[in-house]
Amino acid sequence: MTQPKLFLSDNAAPVHPRVWEALQAADHADVPYDGDGLSAALDERFSDLFGRPCAALWVATGTAANCLALGTMVAPHGGVVCHEEAHIEADEGGAPGFYLHGAKLMLVSGAKDSGGARIAPADIAALIDPIRDDVHQVQPHAIAITQASEYGRCYRADELAALGEFASARHLGLHMDGARFANAVAFLGCSASEAVGPCDTLSFGFIKNGGMGAEAVVLFDPAAAAHVRYRRKRAGHLQCKGRYLAAQILAMLDGDLWLENARAANGAAAQIAQACTARLLHPVEANEIFMRCTAAEREALRAQGFAFYDWGEDAARFVTAWNTRQEDALALAKAIAAL
Amino acid sequence: MTQPKLFLSDNAAPVHPRVWEALQAADHADVPYDGDGLSAALDERFSDLFGRPCAALWVATGTAANCLALGTMVAPHGGVVCHEEAHIEADEGGAPGFYLHGAKLMLVSGAKDSGGARIAPADIAALIDPIRDDVHQVQPHAIAITQASEYGRCYRADELAALGEFASARHLGLHMDGARFANAVAFLGCSASEAVGPCDTLSFGFIKNGGMGAEAVVLFDPAAAAHVRYRRKRAGHLQCKGRYLAAQILAMLDGDLWLENARAANGAAAQIAQACTARLLHPVEANEIFMRCTAAEREALRAQGFAFYDWGEDAARFVTAWNTRQEDALALAKAIAAL
Amino acid sequence: MTQPKLFLSDNAAPVHPRVWEALQAADHADVPYDGDGLSAALDERFSDLFGRPCAALWVATGTAANCLALGTMVAPHGGVVCHEEAHIEADEGGAPGFYLHGAKLMLVSGAKDSGGARIAPADIAALIDPIRDDVHQVQPHAIAITQASEYGRCYRADELAALGEFASARHLGLHMDGARFANAVAFLGCSASEAVGPCDTLSFGFIKNGGMGAEAVVLFDPAAAAHVRYRRKRAGHLQCKGRYLAAQILAMLDGDLWLENARAANGAAAQIAQACTARLLHPVEANEIFMRCTAAEREALRAQGFAFYDWGEDAARFVTAWNTRQEDALALAKAIAAL
Amino acid sequence: MTQPKLFLSDNAAPVHPRVWEALQAADHADVPYDGDGLSAALDERFSDLFGRPCAALWVATGTAANCLALGTMVAPHGGVVCHEEAHIEADEGGAPGFYLHGAKLMLVSGAKDSGGARIAPADIAALIDPIRDDVHQVQPHAIAITQASEYGRCYRADELAALGEFASARHLGLHMDGARFANAVAFLGCSASEAVGPCDTLSFGFIKNGGMGAEAVVLFDPAAAAHVRYRRKRAGHLQCKGRYLAAQILAMLDGDLWLENARAANGAAAQIAQACTARLLHPVEANEIFMRCTAAEREALRAQGFAFYDWGEDAARFVTAWNTRQEDALALAKAIAAL
Repeated sequence: MTQPKLFLSDNAAPVHPRVWEALQAADHADVPYDGDGLSAALDERFSDLFGRPCAALWVATGTAANCLALGTMVAPHGGVVCHEEAHIEADEGGAPGFYLHGAKLMLVSGAKDSGGARIAPADIAALIDPIRDDVHQVQPHAIAITQASEYGRCYRADELAALGEFASARHLGLHMDGARFANAVAFLGCSASEAVGPCDTLSFGFIKNGGMGAEAVVLFDPAAAAHVRYRRKRAGHLQCKGRYLAAQILAMLDGDLWLENARAANGAAAQIAQACTARLLHPVEANEIFMRCTAAEREALRAQGFAFYDWGEDAARFVTAWNTRQEDALALAKAIAAL
Repeated sequence: MTQPKLFLSDNAAPVHPRVWEALQAADHADVPYDGDGLSAALDERFSDLFGRPCAALWVATGTAANCLALGTMVAPHGGVVCHEEAHIEADEGGAPGFYLHGAKLMLVSGAKDSGGARIAPADIAALIDPIRDDVHQVQPHAIAITQASEYGRCYRADELAALGEFASARHLGLHMDGARFANAVAFLGCSASEAVGPCDTLSFGFIKNGGMGAEAVVLFDPAAAAHVRYRRKRAGHLQCKGRYLAAQILAMLDGDLWLENARAANGAAAQIAQACTARLLHPVEANEIFMRCTAAEREALRAQGFAFYDWGEDAARFVTAWNTRQEDALALAKAIAAL
Repeated sequence: MTQPKLFLSDNAAPVHPRVWEALQAADHADVPYDGDGLSAALDERFSDLFGRPCAALWVATGTAANCLALGTMVAPHGGVVCHEEAHIEADEGGAPGFYLHGAKLMLVSGAKDSGGARIAPADIAALIDPIRDDVHQVQPHAIAITQASEYGRCYRADELAALGEFASARHLGLHMDGARFANAVAFLGCSASEAVGPCDTLSFGFIKNGGMGAEAVVLFDPAAAAHVRYRRKRAGHLQCKGRYLAAQILAMLDGDLWLENARAANGAAAQIAQACTARLLHPVEANEIFMRCTAAEREALRAQGFAFYDWGEDAARFVTAWNTRQEDALALAKAIAAL
Repeated sequence: MTQPKLFLSDNAAPVHPRVWEALQAADHADVPYDGDGLSAALDERFSDLFGRPCAALWVATGTAANCLALGTMVAPHGGVVCHEEAHIEADEGGAPGFYLHGAKLMLVSGAKDSGGARIAPADIAALIDPIRDDVHQVQPHAIAITQASEYGRCYRADELAALGEFASARHLGLHMDGARFANAVAFLGCSASEAVGPCDTLSFGFIKNGGMGAEAVVLFDPAAAAHVRYRRKRAGHLQCKGRYLAAQILAMLDGDLWLENARAANGAAAQIAQACTARLLHPVEANEIFMRCTAAEREALRAQGFAFYDWGEDAARFVTAWNTRQEDALALAKAIAAL
């Protein structure tokens, strides 16, 4: 019997062997919580990677990472501007409302975005300029963007710079949800620092990219970590065997495994995308392919052993991962071309 | 050079080999979050263990487990009665205030408890009976106890029954913080069901007892899980590779590894305790020893390679774990006897 | 010099003489908080008015009334469906996020509503049917409607019945923001009970209609009051001289002053509306007139001493109140006709 | 039949005639919320009174005033040190937990206070010095004191200075609950500024002292008002006819009515206190008398028409107010002397 060829989601992928090795290397008694040497090494490792001082904390999920980061810039009576399809709005079960104590998400409509659920200063201005400086209306305190976006699109350096200038002019914080940050860096071919641009905070995803259960909250104002550490504990996210989380992250950074894995996933996606350029809903810039196809076509693909999600009535979503087999991607590309 | 003989905390211990095996057995693509087969198996496994229907959810920390459980019984305007040294009050960074949206912890004083930070109906009545049924005063909604307690003491079946009757008569929920529940069951020599008694919820700890990063929230009213699942997601605790948490817990339950490990830890503690019965601050009923000793004596022990925490000015705390070496426990017992 | 003729807002109007009388009649020492006889009378008075048992509590603002009412039906992890121009979304400074501990407002777009910011089952279904029963997405727990609506439109009995059936079928609570409930009853010519229909809770406004600082939270499940009383105190809304709030409300109910005042305001609005039927943005069903007019026309009206708000670029809003002078309404009607 | 002679609480007293006059003088259409001239005058009037720039906002209750003030200095993950009998802990229904999003009240025990529920730097140090700088423990962010205290005791200038130095050295905010601030100023015979000392915020009570429903939040860092105005709205405390609250406060400040009323209340209390010096639980420094007396003695007093509260088993509490009649105070003094 044939094994299904999986294109459901990168969050279903297994753990990379080098992450396993690091986990097992950490398997000895050590100082609990984040008092161990591995956890302590994170600040310096991320500061090296981004070429400027930053603080970095492990947490178990991207949801927690996003919410803790936003907590450094949004008061309970404020708001966060994001795309209406942003993960924090659409897929985190209301976590920002919980972590931010009732702060409001202020939504840029998909009909008005800059392509693939990315937002631009003009989109944001259209949303917030009508807000009066008046206590009856919630005021924006921050902007949250996603790199790569919910549709696998990447912000370019000049777009990030424009967002940074806008945020700064309006005294807004700027957060980047980087659940697939590695895929964006791999696509853009730039440095991690260029891909994060002027953001104040980043949730740097590792789980979809070969980790088991560790993401990093990266704070480009390292002083903010003093508060975030308390907030992490208060949210029940300070694991007592934290070294196992730090070990995963360090393994991903070692030898740029994060980039190597992302390149593999992106490469597989690009291969598939080439087979269906005319069908694409969005340019493929990371590891997700949104492709127009009929229900009958989807059925045909599934009959050949491909597993993936429907995307509404007339499309499908394929996601590749660090472990997508070359032959599976090729097979999918061929099957799509043959539709 | 000698390796230090560690008695600092069971939360510093490594991961049990059988847990490692289970983790690796789960290392394949699977349905994300808690849609995998391992996560789905938890309800039945815990129902079997406790001999009655219950729901069980994995989370990464005891803090999250306690707070999610309390959330089933405490409204934001209510209160939770606990011991003033309870972990939820003294060591969770205010997490209950966050998860319970400002509910109040109502504290039984250590001077008035039933021994070793355990509380009894009379202690609770003394605290809450003076509260008028009046909106100016926060009303208690639940009681939280710890099994084994913060000083390693265990509640007996009759004590639990009395607490259950009291809670029921006052319309209060009853939660058990079971970070060291396994050690309590091992000591009491009873079933898991007897050790939890009439509690409505239990946070069942595995991390201190051989796990890596998974505890279980056990809900003896399975219907409560519907809400708790939303609250877990909202708190950023729904990990996308949940199978790795479920695997840990199932490995601990398989062949009663949780009990085997707890017996090992308790046995080592008992061995040490025998060497210092006259010095004990509390009877040793689990894997913690609180022993009177002078600063000079502590220095002497440390000089022999024993690592442990001071407990105030005149005492020390030793904690054993599933992996405490027989020879280390024996060496400590001898060293203490020789003081 | 001429006094300006005010059509800015009914919330700027003074206090009705019969309310003043009642305030002064209450001016003697009495039991504090809501222990006085006037406060105690509210439940019965509202039960009489609505012809069924209900509980009623005074609070100082409509914002607090709405939020306390919603708190009876919306868990922190849930959501409230409302119109995107609903007061709770657009004008309460994020109060629902605070009172509901981070619950989410789920917005029916104005482009898709049933006229004048009213919502219908089909609008709500279109919004919530795509929500999967899945912890990643916030689930709706309640619907909030406004009677009369933000554009002065009234829900008819059959519309309310349909909303009630829909809410019931979906297990959703149904709240009515009745800041101008009196104006709606006056327009509909029905009973208070018919105007509230199957709603579970109502915030019954008195302040815009002749009161000083008292609204009523009306709970058609009287048992819910037990929680709401605690929540009111916890929100700092249990005033110690509560009799002065109860007195206002009772004075408004006495001899149907609430209805008499609303009829006066509605009558003045109708008189003005007749002068500009072709210009109306919305049918005038309460005491608000939204009228297309150019900037030059608005200037002309202001030059004649009329005070009112612009409504965007091309319209104006006029609001009448219980104390709008017959001659001022007539003068405005004439001035508009003469534009 | 004789009217009862009321010594239950100053919060039961009626409204002062000059406050009524001011309320009625405000009875005309005006800009809603706090846009009216009376509300706008508060900042300057309080700045004059305290001899330094401050911002002042009206709210309807002392609970809201305390909580909004504390919100300027306490993060959700922090704590507030106060006396265990402080109003914010014992009588506000958990409001600080709500307003401060789960922050913790950290309690100085009555057994260790400085007399009459006052706290001193040494009390606070004993409480907070054992707290490790560690995310597992909630850190104090502020101190809250009550002037006059819950037992009618007043902080002297040197005591306030010491608290200010301590707070400053520990980077803690310092808030004063001034529900009976007027009584303290009247007793101390000092300026308002001296009676508030180095506090950062003050809730200045007027309701118990002749007002109807208005207290002032006074912020000695006027910049903090920007946030507090949003938080007030968000808490449903921005009343739309705010001029009626501002009018009350301004009437109380005019001609030092606040001081005149407090002197009257204190004078009556002093007269009663002279009759029972040997029985006093606390020196009488404001308008509250806590007096040892048996149940039989209380019955005897009540038989003579005196209304007051029991204070535990063996004492009574008498509270005087701005309107306590000279002859009633005298009669009570005589009746007590005759016991």
